[in-house]
Amino acid sequence: MKKLFAVALLIAFLGSASGYAQTIEITRNASTPSIPGGKEYFTGRVVVDPLYPATAQTGATTGLVTFAPGARTAWHTHPAGQLLIVQSGKGWVQQDGQARQVINPGDVIWIPANTRHWHGATANNGMSHIAVSYMKDGQNVIWKEQVTDKQYNPE
Amino acid sequence: MKKLFAVALLIAFLGSASGYAQTIEITRNASTPSIPGGKEYFTGRVVVDPLYPATAQTGATTGLVTFAPGARTAWHTHPAGQLLIVQSGKGWVQQDGQARQVINPGDVIWIPANTRHWHGATANNGMSHIAVSYMKDGQNVIWKEQVTDKQYNPE
Repeated sequence: MKKLFAVALLIAFLGSASGYAQTIEITRNASTPSIPGGKEYFTGRVVVDPLYPATAQTGATTGLVTFAPGARTAWHTHPAGQLLIVQSGKGWVQQDGQARQVINPGDVIWIPANTRHWHGATANNGMSHIAVSYMKDGQNVIWKEQVTDKQYNPE
Repeated sequence: MKKLFAVALLIAFLGSASGYAQTIEITRNASTPSIPGGKEYFTGRVVVDPLYPATAQTGATTGLVTFAPGARTAWHTHPAGQLLIVQSGKGWVQQDGQARQVINPGDVIWIPANTRHWHGATANNGMSHIAVSYMKDGQNVIWKEQVTDKQYNPE
């Protein structure tokens, strides 16, 4: 029995150290349920689809974030930055103290570390983007207060 | 004149060290010309759209790669792995010694470091994917020989 356990351990070790780790890993579309964006971090209807986790090799979580018209993140910062790749629709991004900017499909946005900002859909159109959020000390986002309607759309 | 140069240097330094680095950076869709995939690394018509470069913070190049039907990479490995996010069409990926696998939009593929493989479109449909290619010692890919027609589509 003890021997069997030792063999099982050995197989598990070899599996994680060489076999498994060296096999191409395909995560199929919609194999993980979508996650509704929490009320404390978002305004309006937001859905997050996790795509790939942070690992020693990626150093970042990768996900698809979909915003309904009018929906947006709260103000926040990223301790190690974030890369956004707009997939569909039309969105807005705003850095604190600067003008709001329109983002469209194919646009790529780099959010530097520790830069206070928000992003989301425009008032009349939804928007989705891939988000690559880099980890620092186990964290990839620091949430602040909500974006008011006046801040979101001053027009 | 010397003073002016010193001031210019100071502005350049401040710009790169704090000002610029802390400003959200938007790379607009199609602001960079597409790059045809080189004949030595690809079979068939392949187009690469650079999305974001490797930096100290990203540690990886990010690009969109589009394959015409029948087009594929040569056999290759990645010294620090690669993440693929399929955007459109229908493709194949094959690890050396394993069965070819179909990939569809929304599928996410992790290619572990030093794993010999190829990817591309299927014979009858194009395919595009985002590719995040991690750097190691200034390299993110090691190219090998071309994928023969027989290897590509043994059916």
